[in-house]
Amino acid sequence: MRIHNFSAGPSTLPMEILEALQKDIVDYQGVGYSLIEASHRGKVFDGIYNETMDLLKEIMGIPAGYSPFFLGGGATLQFAMIPMNFQGNGTAYYAKTGTWSNKATDDAQKLGKVVVAFDGKDSNYSTLPDPHQLEIPQDASYFYYCSNETIGGIQWQEVPEVGNVPLIVDTSSDFLSRPIDVEKFSLIYGGVQKNLAPAGATLVIVKDEMLERCPDTLPAYLSYKTHAKAKGLYNTPPVFSIWAVNLMLKWIKKNGGLVGMQQRAEEKAALLYDLFDSSSFYRNPVDAKYRSRMNVVFRLPSEELEAKFVAEALNEGLSALKGHKSVGGCRASIYNALEKSSVETLVAFMREFERRNG
Amino acid sequence: MRIHNFSAGPSTLPMEILEALQKDIVDYQGVGYSLIEASHRGKVFDGIYNETMDLLKEIMGIPAGYSPFFLGGGATLQFAMIPMNFQGNGTAYYAKTGTWSNKATDDAQKLGKVVVAFDGKDSNYSTLPDPHQLEIPQDASYFYYCSNETIGGIQWQEVPEVGNVPLIVDTSSDFLSRPIDVEKFSLIYGGVQKNLAPAGATLVIVKDEMLERCPDTLPAYLSYKTHAKAKGLYNTPPVFSIWAVNLMLKWIKKNGGLVGMQQRAEEKAALLYDLFDSSSFYRNPVDAKYRSRMNVVFRLPSEELEAKFVAEALNEGLSALKGHKSVGGCRASIYNALEKSSVETLVAFMREFERRNG
Repeated sequence: MRIHNFSAGPSTLPMEILEALQKDIVDYQGVGYSLIEASHRGKVFDGIYNETMDLLKEIMGIPAGYSPFFLGGGATLQFAMIPMNFQGNGTAYYAKTGTWSNKATDDAQKLGKVVVAFDGKDSNYSTLPDPHQLEIPQDASYFYYCSNETIGGIQWQEVPEVGNVPLIVDTSSDFLSRPIDVEKFSLIYGGVQKNLAPAGATLVIVKDEMLERCPDTLPAYLSYKTHAKAKGLYNTPPVFSIWAVNLMLKWIKKNGGLVGMQQRAEEKAALLYDLFDSSSFYRNPVDAKYRSRMNVVFRLPSEELEAKFVAEALNEGLSALKGHKSVGGCRASIYNALEKSSVETLVAFMREFERRNG
Repeated sequence: MRIHNFSAGPSTLPMEILEALQKDIVDYQGVGYSLIEASHRGKVFDGIYNETMDLLKEIMGIPAGYSPFFLGGGATLQFAMIPMNFQGNGTAYYAKTGTWSNKATDDAQKLGKVVVAFDGKDSNYSTLPDPHQLEIPQDASYFYYCSNETIGGIQWQEVPEVGNVPLIVDTSSDFLSRPIDVEKFSLIYGGVQKNLAPAGATLVIVKDEMLERCPDTLPAYLSYKTHAKAKGLYNTPPVFSIWAVNLMLKWIKKNGGLVGMQQRAEEKAALLYDLFDSSSFYRNPVDAKYRSRMNVVFRLPSEELEAKFVAEALNEGLSALKGHKSVGGCRASIYNALEKSSVETLVAFMREFERRNG
């Protein structure tokens, strides 16, 4: 029996994509070999790759002057590459809003001058700054933020206003879950293992005019210029992940594009937040303005009840509801591919659990 | 019909592994989800991961005091990480023996002091230094070489003697194709997309005592210390590639381990080199002492005949025989998973092609 998979990443995929992978993994559409055995310089992979990039540009509305490519190493490698490429002798501004943006800030501080423009520490990372009141100096190297903190379950609902300062966003856990105005950004990146595909690739979309900043002293892989110039094929790309991204982009397009994804996310999230708001048993610790539509965190009256909840949910086929160990509590990750019916099943279980334990 | 796939990487996999992936990719052994949907912090992935690491240690004979882990970014990221971690203020020694070691040298030269201990340029990278006559100063930061150059088809047949200098090897294209004395090395690495699994992961095996050298100023992902400390799970690993590596390690064990792989490789390579040595039509440009057992390069009397050969071979189901564009000619990559019968089919075709065109 297929479980309801609320994992924070790697995470659930549409059944039709798993079945498409299954169908073709031994022999890709009759070519006589698997796509995962194909040369990344050959015609078959080339076709998939170009189609993937075209779909990505279409779905995100990526204009000319931007270069998208896949890298390895996850968001964690981007924490290093961004300052190495763009910090220069200037000062980079970071918003510290939880685990992931904090790690990104740590790396940038090792590499150059950083100002923390916002630190959510005092609120235990339960709120965000007003996106219209950031006041970033216009000579900043860039402003960096994480659009959705997977662990804290907190999400920027608007793009921060930073004037002409280059804007860089880690969108790993809400990538392609809502429309995005690409032209506002100098670099957008995200791991694919949450909303898009199996783990193993990070999508980077860089504004070409930023490439002038990449120091020539950088080793090849660590320079965005290398990958932009080679259209993402400087070295062997993560073929399987790209194949799955290709299938997922088609699925997103078929399901209403980014507007459709936003609607799905809002409907699913509302089912849970409405429950919290009408319950004194379940509690969401995040400032209501910034509640995540991707990672819905919640607490029960005690840690004992939380442990019981997670265990009993698993017995009902509701999996991976334990919060991250660094913050405790519970978490339901409800990425693109998770069906609304899974959230409905969860909410029904939660009501029943409250009735028995409230 | 399944083709004979001589691709240089990504490359052919055993049919039984493709079928095992196919069987489990929708629902991993009845757990109710695919392994590619599983949390990398959960029990199911954990079991696979620990088994993979145990198998790797057993098959390679990795002693205590070494940390193996998977990274993203391919060999190309290692070209940067090695000098960033180990070059320090000292001098690193590199052997330039073809495309890949040359790229590694380029990166190291950007980052610190480098001496080129051997440069194959004058021989057009057709020979290697005598591994017993290298004379590396004992205060060198490390000595770096590439055990098999995929493009040039040239392979070190012995481990170079460097005294107490830390020895670092890029074994991307002959990884797990023959026994290796791990204790001679300070760092061994290789992309998995040739002898082991689909593209998307690089295996790194580092001697723990080297970790003291990793500067604390390095960003998290770029420090080997980060990954060794976290036993390779600092951030989301490339789950699918690791799953395939797991299956391939079992396959290697079942087929005689590294001794069995060496025997397979030597038998396959001999079929081709014997043909060259008995033919005035096919010619291998590499010093006979250093011929690769993995990437067998060869020339025909003219470029026109080479193009005709590649095209006609493809019609016979013999795929990916074109040499790398930077060197031209032809190349048959005969990694672990390629069956001897595929090489026999190729040799029969080559004899026939010579008869018609010689």
